[in-house]
Amino acid sequence: MTERHDVAILGAGSAGYATALRAAQLGLGVVMVDRGPVGGTCLHRGCIPTKAWLHAADVRRTVAAAPSFGISAQGGDVDAARVREYAEQVVGGLHKGLEGLLRSRNVEVVPGDGRLVVDELGPGIDLDGSILRARNIVVATGAEPVTLGLPVDGERIITSEHALRLQRLPRRAVVIGGGVIGVEFASMWNDLGVEVTLVEALPRLLPTEEPDLSEILARQLGRRGIDLRLGAAVEGARATDDGVEVTVGGEALSSDLVLVAVGRRPNVAPVAETELRLDGAHVAVDEFLATSQRGVFAVGDLVKGPQLAHRGYAHGMFVAERIAQLEGRFPGVPVLPKDRDIARITYSSPQVASVGMTTEQARSVGEVETADFHLRGNGRALILRAPGEREPGLVRIIRRKGGEIVGVHAIGDDVAELITEGALLVNWRATPEDVRDVVHPHPTLGEALAEANLQLAGAALHMHG
Amino acid sequence: MTERHDVAILGAGSAGYATALRAAQLGLGVVMVDRGPVGGTCLHRGCIPTKAWLHAADVRRTVAAAPSFGISAQGGDVDAARVREYAEQVVGGLHKGLEGLLRSRNVEVVPGDGRLVVDELGPGIDLDGSILRARNIVVATGAEPVTLGLPVDGERIITSEHALRLQRLPRRAVVIGGGVIGVEFASMWNDLGVEVTLVEALPRLLPTEEPDLSEILARQLGRRGIDLRLGAAVEGARATDDGVEVTVGGEALSSDLVLVAVGRRPNVAPVAETELRLDGAHVAVDEFLATSQRGVFAVGDLVKGPQLAHRGYAHGMFVAERIAQLEGRFPGVPVLPKDRDIARITYSSPQVASVGMTTEQARSVGEVETADFHLRGNGRALILRAPGEREPGLVRIIRRKGGEIVGVHAIGDDVAELITEGALLVNWRATPEDVRDVVHPHPTLGEALAEANLQLAGAALHMHG
Repeated sequence: MTERHDVAILGAGSAGYATALRAAQLGLGVVMVDRGPVGGTCLHRGCIPTKAWLHAADVRRTVAAAPSFGISAQGGDVDAARVREYAEQVVGGLHKGLEGLLRSRNVEVVPGDGRLVVDELGPGIDLDGSILRARNIVVATGAEPVTLGLPVDGERIITSEHALRLQRLPRRAVVIGGGVIGVEFASMWNDLGVEVTLVEALPRLLPTEEPDLSEILARQLGRRGIDLRLGAAVEGARATDDGVEVTVGGEALSSDLVLVAVGRRPNVAPVAETELRLDGAHVAVDEFLATSQRGVFAVGDLVKGPQLAHRGYAHGMFVAERIAQLEGRFPGVPVLPKDRDIARITYSSPQVASVGMTTEQARSVGEVETADFHLRGNGRALILRAPGEREPGLVRIIRRKGGEIVGVHAIGDDVAELITEGALLVNWRATPEDVRDVVHPHPTLGEALAEANLQLAGAALHMHG
Repeated sequence: MTERHDVAILGAGSAGYATALRAAQLGLGVVMVDRGPVGGTCLHRGCIPTKAWLHAADVRRTVAAAPSFGISAQGGDVDAARVREYAEQVVGGLHKGLEGLLRSRNVEVVPGDGRLVVDELGPGIDLDGSILRARNIVVATGAEPVTLGLPVDGERIITSEHALRLQRLPRRAVVIGGGVIGVEFASMWNDLGVEVTLVEALPRLLPTEEPDLSEILARQLGRRGIDLRLGAAVEGARATDDGVEVTVGGEALSSDLVLVAVGRRPNVAPVAETELRLDGAHVAVDEFLATSQRGVFAVGDLVKGPQLAHRGYAHGMFVAERIAQLEGRFPGVPVLPKDRDIARITYSSPQVASVGMTTEQARSVGEVETADFHLRGNGRALILRAPGEREPGLVRIIRRKGGEIVGVHAIGDDVAELITEGALLVNWRATPEDVRDVVHPHPTLGEALAEANLQLAGAALHMHG
């Protein structure tokens, strides 16, 4: 096969398709190979359907709380098949849109199980023996669930991908893993009426987040009836006649199913036959996301760092621009965002969102100042909270002493969208003084961020101090 | 009475109390006079209780839509007394917090009906014949509903302040006024099961917003069953034996009550005995919010411009700093935000939020470029939308041709919090190129803003073009 394309992409997930869309936009000829539908894990088996299920859980919580807002409501039965249908409708709509976009930009999508090969002609993508060649190859094969050696059967011992396909919710579930995925499923199932036990080997939930946020989260999940086992090791799990038995710290827990949500590892199998240099489990790359093989780039979850769809988009945009630059078709300077300055959200109830450094990370490089605004002083948070309900959360801003904002952290209902402002502040190296005169509309959750900034700028308004 | 205080404030609403808190923080001695509880219209009779009612309406809409998300729910009866109780609880919590803040900063709050007086000793606040004097007086008496000469009786012909005190919802209501207040009440009552007719004299709703947004809003309210009468004049309203009769464009509409929501006018009565120069219905001020009377400032809704609590906060912060500067106690340069760069939100369903210029305003000063991102391409918006429901809305960004962002406009469920990012972009005179590499987390509504910026920067990702 001749070098028909400028760019060949292996994997049509967030990072892969973003590469394709941007490269095509820059005038490059693009082909993209994937065995599955375009959109990959995030769209079909990850963020999107999970957030749809989480929204159904929010709806059930709202129905339960409705009377305290003066609205009568009975019910709350969960029709899991119907939730799936709704989630699939969302996925289907986005998938159709993505297909249309790819088509409109003339990206050629080739179905099939591709593998990276490097032979005397250079790198290529092997598709059932036929080799697809391009001047630039981008590997974007993503990640897949880690199962800890537990006997995952897809029925009783499952991963998040199986969990999204359940036709019926269990009565009881054990969730192994207190990271983003585990916390989201534990919160969601609890809201949907499942008795949940959440097991995490480390002593706190969301171990990469600010410890105070982990603590508030644990307190709130505990108050809602989730049985939290922190610092607890899972010794084994086995299917029984009518469920599953999980051994945790010597204790045998009976349950209907167990969700193994201990992380995802890069899917390097499709590059395993090459000499591509690895960095632990990941593909090693330089600051341009170029691998050790000339002409081959890696993007998304294959590259060490936070596993986030939006990081994948950023990688894809960057690599497409880098390739276009090398091909003389992009006059700008592509910018690869720093991992730490990429915001992350856990869509549990309460939501947790953050960007930049934690207090500990910031302290390791110098003196810091922090301000916390508790959402109990925020009008919008009090409006959203069912009367008499739990503590509403907080927003924390961290700056270098007298200097720029380096971290923004939030926990509370509906705080996810706030982190975009946080991302702007951190990415722009803004100081609290820079933003103190930008008016935040009232009443919004965003005012909490403004108040924390005002405090750091010595002008706290709705806040003691 | 001697000049005991550095600052005396007439009115304890958003602008007044913000002046007090900031002035006290800067070391000034402060007294504040108001006949009512601290917090004023926004806290007690405006934004806060209205948004609580709107949230109850959201809850009812969620209950109604729950089955389409897979959650069974019956009910939806509205217990208006209970909604009021919830709203009052929110107000009460914030009021208590505000009282505590004022106390902790040693702001002296004096209850009573104050009037500005100017005599041979200079300006003062007359409180039942006793005159309170201070080196600086800040007038912050806010605004009150305009009633168009209609015979408001508080029962059948009411203003928004009465509407928040209803113990029972009407079966049918006519809302006069398609501005923020009218649209919020029409949307809320419709969601709470009231048959609503909305009458606006101008040919579109929210006449200061982008016309396309007005159109989407009208379409969505119409689809939900609100009887919209645009470009229609109200000729009269009168209470009848069992309700009210409103004459609109020659037609007599029968209803249970009519809400007069045609705007609010500055409450200048407490300054009427002075020679304070007016600017139409407002108090005239210079660029430091100083009135024509030396030593007297005016803030908030008394000053011509958008009537917004957060503008009041900004005025209060500014005037307090300006006074402190004049007194040699503030080394900085106080900044008064431009009215146009202050974000505004209508908390109807869908929400409308905007900041900066409309397309028409921007075009009047030069060539512009705009980008629209329709929320039907946004994952989060599709998740929040009940399956099969109405169009989800859009985000529009306006830049000077090749230059900075001058306007951000959004309509859709839950778009309110997005406008904070918009405010940062507009206030900082950012260009789309400045922000194109700031990663927005997925899936969020905020991505819609990022996509519109990417399009303006020539790098649209999830968007045709």
